[in-house]
Amino acid sequence: MTVLPLRPSLPAIMIEDQVRAALLEDLGRAGDITTYSTIAPHLTATALLNTRQNGIVAGMELARTAFRLVDPSVTFEAHVDDGDRVKPGDVLATVKGPARSVLSGERVALNYLMHLSGIATLTARYAAEVAHTRARIACTRKTLPGLRGVAKYAVRLGGGSNHRYGLDDAVLIKDNHIVVAGGVASAVLAARAYCGHLVKIEVEVDSLEQLREALTASPDAVLLDNMGPDLLREAVEINRQHAGLSAEDYATSPSRVKLEASGNVDLTTVKAIAESGVDYISTSKVTMAAPTLDIGLDAVTQ
Amino acid sequence: MTVLPLRPSLPAIMIEDQVRAALLEDLGRAGDITTYSTIAPHLTATALLNTRQNGIVAGMELARTAFRLVDPSVTFEAHVDDGDRVKPGDVLATVKGPARSVLSGERVALNYLMHLSGIATLTARYAAEVAHTRARIACTRKTLPGLRGVAKYAVRLGGGSNHRYGLDDAVLIKDNHIVVAGGVASAVLAARAYCGHLVKIEVEVDSLEQLREALTASPDAVLLDNMGPDLLREAVEINRQHAGLSAEDYATSPSRVKLEASGNVDLTTVKAIAESGVDYISTSKVTMAAPTLDIGLDAVTQ
Amino acid sequence: MTVLPLRPSLPAIMIEDQVRAALLEDLGRAGDITTYSTIAPHLTATALLNTRQNGIVAGMELARTAFRLVDPSVTFEAHVDDGDRVKPGDVLATVKGPARSVLSGERVALNYLMHLSGIATLTARYAAEVAHTRARIACTRKTLPGLRGVAKYAVRLGGGSNHRYGLDDAVLIKDNHIVVAGGVASAVLAARAYCGHLVKIEVEVDSLEQLREALTASPDAVLLDNMGPDLLREAVEINRQHAGLSAEDYATSPSRVKLEASGNVDLTTVKAIAESGVDYISTSKVTMAAPTLDIGLDAVTQ
Amino acid sequence: MTVLPLRPSLPAIMIEDQVRAALLEDLGRAGDITTYSTIAPHLTATALLNTRQNGIVAGMELARTAFRLVDPSVTFEAHVDDGDRVKPGDVLATVKGPARSVLSGERVALNYLMHLSGIATLTARYAAEVAHTRARIACTRKTLPGLRGVAKYAVRLGGGSNHRYGLDDAVLIKDNHIVVAGGVASAVLAARAYCGHLVKIEVEVDSLEQLREALTASPDAVLLDNMGPDLLREAVEINRQHAGLSAEDYATSPSRVKLEASGNVDLTTVKAIAESGVDYISTSKVTMAAPTLDIGLDAVTQ
Amino acid sequence: MTVLPLRPSLPAIMIEDQVRAALLEDLGRAGDITTYSTIAPHLTATALLNTRQNGIVAGMELARTAFRLVDPSVTFEAHVDDGDRVKPGDVLATVKGPARSVLSGERVALNYLMHLSGIATLTARYAAEVAHTRARIACTRKTLPGLRGVAKYAVRLGGGSNHRYGLDDAVLIKDNHIVVAGGVASAVLAARAYCGHLVKIEVEVDSLEQLREALTASPDAVLLDNMGPDLLREAVEINRQHAGLSAEDYATSPSRVKLEASGNVDLTTVKAIAESGVDYISTSKVTMAAPTLDIGLDAVTQ
Amino acid sequence: MTVLPLRPSLPAIMIEDQVRAALLEDLGRAGDITTYSTIAPHLTATALLNTRQNGIVAGMELARTAFRLVDPSVTFEAHVDDGDRVKPGDVLATVKGPARSVLSGERVALNYLMHLSGIATLTARYAAEVAHTRARIACTRKTLPGLRGVAKYAVRLGGGSNHRYGLDDAVLIKDNHIVVAGGVASAVLAARAYCGHLVKIEVEVDSLEQLREALTASPDAVLLDNMGPDLLREAVEINRQHAGLSAEDYATSPSRVKLEASGNVDLTTVKAIAESGVDYISTSKVTMAAPTLDIGLDAVTQ
Repeated sequence: MTVLPLRPSLPAIMIEDQVRAALLEDLGRAGDITTYSTIAPHLTATALLNTRQNGIVAGMELARTAFRLVDPSVTFEAHVDDGDRVKPGDVLATVKGPARSVLSGERVALNYLMHLSGIATLTARYAAEVAHTRARIACTRKTLPGLRGVAKYAVRLGGGSNHRYGLDDAVLIKDNHIVVAGGVASAVLAARAYCGHLVKIEVEVDSLEQLREALTASPDAVLLDNMGPDLLREAVEINRQHAGLSAEDYATSPSRVKLEASGNVDLTTVKAIAESGVDYISTSKVTMAAPTLDIGLDAVTQ
Repeated sequence: MTVLPLRPSLPAIMIEDQVRAALLEDLGRAGDITTYSTIAPHLTATALLNTRQNGIVAGMELARTAFRLVDPSVTFEAHVDDGDRVKPGDVLATVKGPARSVLSGERVALNYLMHLSGIATLTARYAAEVAHTRARIACTRKTLPGLRGVAKYAVRLGGGSNHRYGLDDAVLIKDNHIVVAGGVASAVLAARAYCGHLVKIEVEVDSLEQLREALTASPDAVLLDNMGPDLLREAVEINRQHAGLSAEDYATSPSRVKLEASGNVDLTTVKAIAESGVDYISTSKVTMAAPTLDIGLDAVTQ
Repeated sequence: MTVLPLRPSLPAIMIEDQVRAALLEDLGRAGDITTYSTIAPHLTATALLNTRQNGIVAGMELARTAFRLVDPSVTFEAHVDDGDRVKPGDVLATVKGPARSVLSGERVALNYLMHLSGIATLTARYAAEVAHTRARIACTRKTLPGLRGVAKYAVRLGGGSNHRYGLDDAVLIKDNHIVVAGGVASAVLAARAYCGHLVKIEVEVDSLEQLREALTASPDAVLLDNMGPDLLREAVEINRQHAGLSAEDYATSPSRVKLEASGNVDLTTVKAIAESGVDYISTSKVTMAAPTLDIGLDAVTQ
Repeated sequence: MTVLPLRPSLPAIMIEDQVRAALLEDLGRAGDITTYSTIAPHLTATALLNTRQNGIVAGMELARTAFRLVDPSVTFEAHVDDGDRVKPGDVLATVKGPARSVLSGERVALNYLMHLSGIATLTARYAAEVAHTRARIACTRKTLPGLRGVAKYAVRLGGGSNHRYGLDDAVLIKDNHIVVAGGVASAVLAARAYCGHLVKIEVEVDSLEQLREALTASPDAVLLDNMGPDLLREAVEINRQHAGLSAEDYATSPSRVKLEASGNVDLTTVKAIAESGVDYISTSKVTMAAPTLDIGLDAVTQ
Repeated sequence: MTVLPLRPSLPAIMIEDQVRAALLEDLGRAGDITTYSTIAPHLTATALLNTRQNGIVAGMELARTAFRLVDPSVTFEAHVDDGDRVKPGDVLATVKGPARSVLSGERVALNYLMHLSGIATLTARYAAEVAHTRARIACTRKTLPGLRGVAKYAVRLGGGSNHRYGLDDAVLIKDNHIVVAGGVASAVLAARAYCGHLVKIEVEVDSLEQLREALTASPDAVLLDNMGPDLLREAVEINRQHAGLSAEDYATSPSRVKLEASGNVDLTTVKAIAESGVDYISTSKVTMAAPTLDIGLDAVTQ
Repeated sequence: MTVLPLRPSLPAIMIEDQVRAALLEDLGRAGDITTYSTIAPHLTATALLNTRQNGIVAGMELARTAFRLVDPSVTFEAHVDDGDRVKPGDVLATVKGPARSVLSGERVALNYLMHLSGIATLTARYAAEVAHTRARIACTRKTLPGLRGVAKYAVRLGGGSNHRYGLDDAVLIKDNHIVVAGGVASAVLAARAYCGHLVKIEVEVDSLEQLREALTASPDAVLLDNMGPDLLREAVEINRQHAGLSAEDYATSPSRVKLEASGNVDLTTVKAIAESGVDYISTSKVTMAAPTLDIGLDAVTQ
């Protein structure tokens, strides 16, 4: 039986600082001079956040926070939750309040929603390609500066899995570390000696020989870099034999070494990679260049 | 005679805060535990920043700052300048210093370089499409939160022009403002009454009728939203007649109303739009979803 | 028909950080020890913000924010709006809440109100001197560090106009730039090549010859530095002739070059300068050394 | 024998944050676009900071820091020290470096120097008026938000003395506190009970009766609010008698109660107030509205 | 008659920044992943903050702020005030709200409460030892970085007194200063020349000879470093004679020089030190290594 | 063969912000007034950081940073490395520079060194008690607010191991989570469904029955709360049998479930706990109330 993961939270304290910075980046020193020059202070507005494309919504709390920080008297009524599928014409939220405030917060709210929903939507397309396998899509540390936390949150909403959040929460041993440490296995042992019992250790290999050596040191995961589906299939078999598991048990064994594939991953290749039997497929595409989801704001000012 | 614009600067004080934040986002609370566990403190490394694609480089100062902030003893020798064209195999910079420091700064330096060079490179592709016209490519306020300044800087390096940096440095009147102000011309007059003499005023119109009304109020620029090349051509002609200029003089008159086209802009449509005679073509594509330029770091640790 | 400008806004997000810093500057590490040692925690107070001079009020939102940040349970009922004229004895606001909180926020609230109302009031005196002309009073970048945004806001409330907010929102070419660029006209052309279509370009000249050269490059404005009323009158005439406008049309033409006078501006000279026909008169006097407006707080503690 | 006070320091760590903020306020998001568009990146400049008025210099470290933060390669050679007297034509400092950097830092450096030197110069005028008495000029907590530390530093350089820096470093009991505490003496006793042995206690009185009551509670100082020279002279006599000191001993006794006069202090009244025999005369004039000292930058670009 | 000191306040603005930082230190980039993975978003919880030891409570406002910053919808009902004595089993507060929010804020709230209550409790033990004397326990500048303000607040709640909050709010002359200034008395005179009338001056001496010299310069206080009870008793007598006071008057004289003992202070020595007749006994023990008070959170999730 | 862990790094960027805050907390608004009033600006000093107790040094980089931030011209020559054992009289570092700067940075440098060396020293005492077993001492999330990163760093230097750094880098399931999730095993499965492949999962149990249930879900570690040595020994045996390992293999198996003991841990109990065969023993004692290591600064001013 599969256990479905719960939804993550994004508490206010974790996003306020960045939304505040984004608003100040937009308001500058003089504020929304177009609005101040054309719309009197006492006017109110009702605005609808509409989506114009199919996709997965991500970033509703950031949008809500943007309007709230501009003006606490603005109300933001959400009609969808982060992670929901939407289609053209769906209204994500109704925003009401002083017209100047609603219009001043619009762009920042939309920039977050369009970008994060774009990440979630693209991740979901990748996830759909591999849904018939045990592979999960994972993002990397290739994220836009300052946006890592919310980007990885959006990846989850699209059905993806999160790799390390930074250099400090898991070990990922790469070629430079291996050379200095004197080999794949030595590097893994050095990492185990250094780390506490709540830190996972993954090592990157680029050949089956390195994989075999890595397995002798019992890492938590191995990253198979730039291998095609055939090599990956061999890698899975090597891992299974090393674990001494039957094909059935392999699938469900919680403590065996996990295999991650990376390199040359796109929407045309990901299915074949997944069918090799690897556990994770990581790609920076979902965080570094996902097309935005087209979302707009339509306002009626009174 | 065309005057070529000089290169912008990006002084340290304008980028340090964001690079620091990006590094702390990556280093977390425990730092680069992979490196600390496998590479002894006294080892040094020489690393090359290599590009693996054709493109325009942007972000060298951000990369330099990333390594400097991790460790002031790291040296960063740049071999190219921001705005230079590069091809696969070109070495952008040589980075030397304590191996732990070089590897700890790598990802943030690359994330900036890959993202900003991607923006510059995509902008240059758009700019090349319209190089035979007087149109220039302009970016918008649809930028990733926290990255607006450097994104607009990268657009310039790709040969693009910068639209407003925020809500406060120029007026852009849109439909909501027009409705409240009682019409296009009234809105422009309200903005002129509000603003000082160093603020430009642009108004968005979606029909030639609105354009004609707008011109009566002498804005600095008019944004023609979602018009095809034929309508745009008519708009240019209306503007020329309103200014009472010959076709030749129209091209070079510094003080006539500028026309900007937006909507439905991509690499397949931009050429025809430009050939309509408009002055600027704005698009969020270059800032919101430019593919990264593939750049890597190859290190030799001693 | 003259269009009256609307009032600017000062959204909470744009002032909170500075008010917080001002409060922490005053509260230090131990807080308001006088109040803590003499007034028990449960006592409440009602306080009136009174003005003791004639003037224009500016800074009500900053005062409100000061009390709110000390203690959200304090209520601040405003009896006047920013920009209103007040006379001795007028009550600007009633503040109620825990006595400790009301007294702890008093000084910061008053420091903002006294300083900004002083700016608005002095600006209004200058504006009154030139009200019969087309000239408007403009402030400069000579502002007290950290207070530029609110100072320029106060200038507007006094009937003044805002010059550049910083180095980045408009071009102002001065002698050093001109020397390097190879002349007034070359400098203007260089700036036009560099800047997007939403950036205005002004050039500073100190002779009528330089003015004539500047006009050939069609800047948006020319700053006439340190010229007496007679020279200024000549400058206006040169500008009119260059534009080919009648005296009547000159006054109302929206797109002609604007002329700004600066240097030797004070309350005894400003009228004559304005009568020369220039469009703007800029002075740092209003932002750098305006006498404070005397405002006090009278509290009744229960 | 009089002991002359040493000069205070202003360590980098105490001013960097505010200078950085002031620079970012001026550079905005796009930087110094005038300079970038007219001056090529490789040009260097030598600039002189010149004073054009007689006065006392204050703020040299802030000016140095402004240029350094824009560009660490700029050199700043000071020719005078904070606290020195200068006359028109004196060169305060020579600044050399990349022309773009020198010009980008100019305004912030000058804004600090002009404002703080203005404070020091005005303070020195007040101090000169009272130099023949034992009275010293003291500033108050009426300072411009965010500038209290540097303003009080400038007051010292002008020969003034510093009152409290904030609500937390000394007790100043005013009418509201007295009413709640049940009288002047009770308030002083309450403060002594609350405060540690390194906190001074001053109490404000507005009559000689209150002074007499205050003295029974042995405060460290008494603020005599809005009393004319005659009343002040009586107050001094009361204090002398209470202390049981001869007129000679009164002058030099280190531990007797200090008397401070405030209210109606200006350059025409301060001498008479001082001659009453009070110890301190406090005024907000020196910090809230001192005219700037005229200082400029003359650059030669190569 | 003894005047009892009132309770200090800890306004929100003075603690929010540090509580926010503490929460972000704990929540990191991904938030409370244990809670997100096991507790659905819609569940609510009621939690009790219980103490498991005898002690003095300190930090209730910090705990309240921790929960509020995670989620403003969480309610925090306090059942005790800071400064109250508690015993095992006492419920300090009831916390209600979304279960995810309550659990996410728990650790930071408890870390503050346990640490500060530990300081208050240990201070109270010291204070109890000296309650029969006129000596008061004072803390020093040996405090944990970033926690000085709240640590000194906790010391007060435990019945202690606060020494300087920092280098700037009082003078404490030590051996290095004395050597440079040319002696104890010269150093005190130099400090008096430098400081305004609201700054107290204390000087540290390590012999009775130095004490006698110090008293000639009339400091506000003398710190007697590392003297045993007998020497301290002599010091008190010297001070009494210098002041020309009877033993009775000495005790109550508000303006005589205060004597502070430091060095070799612990719970076994403090009583004898106090009985020597000194006014203050300072120790870093209460702020640098007080055992925590054991406080826990018991939650019922619905 | 045992692999010895390398030393961690503490890059400047990870500590500068907190040291800056600590310095500003100490310097306040007026700076080190004692030093400014007694020591002339041009004097220099040489100071030695001496230890007066046996212990392990931690915090040298924080001390160095403190002096550097006050004044970059101060030199700091370290004579020991973090993690070194020191004895009374050992000189940790020589600090030279302007006397005012050296004395202004002293307290903050010492506060870090004394606190962190105290943590390292106490941890080493615990580690020595268990050195003959396979158990390692681990710290918890009970750390002083704002000091978690450096506290955990000091624990490592004392030979301890680091538990989670925060709520986000590993899962630790406690009773509240178990109740909501419907049991120990369900909670572990929910966490595995939620988390990516680089996040470890630990679950807290308080009985052997819960341990058995937990093991069926294959967590990475189990926290045995408040069990005495005998129960812990049984728990180890249960874990061994569940893993199907011989006693020898159990010790070295890298992938078996790790057991952690907590509760009632002090220097008198830790040895017996360790001898039960558990892998980790966690305690908050080392981070929440370690006695400081006595370190002082002796300066010679010239």
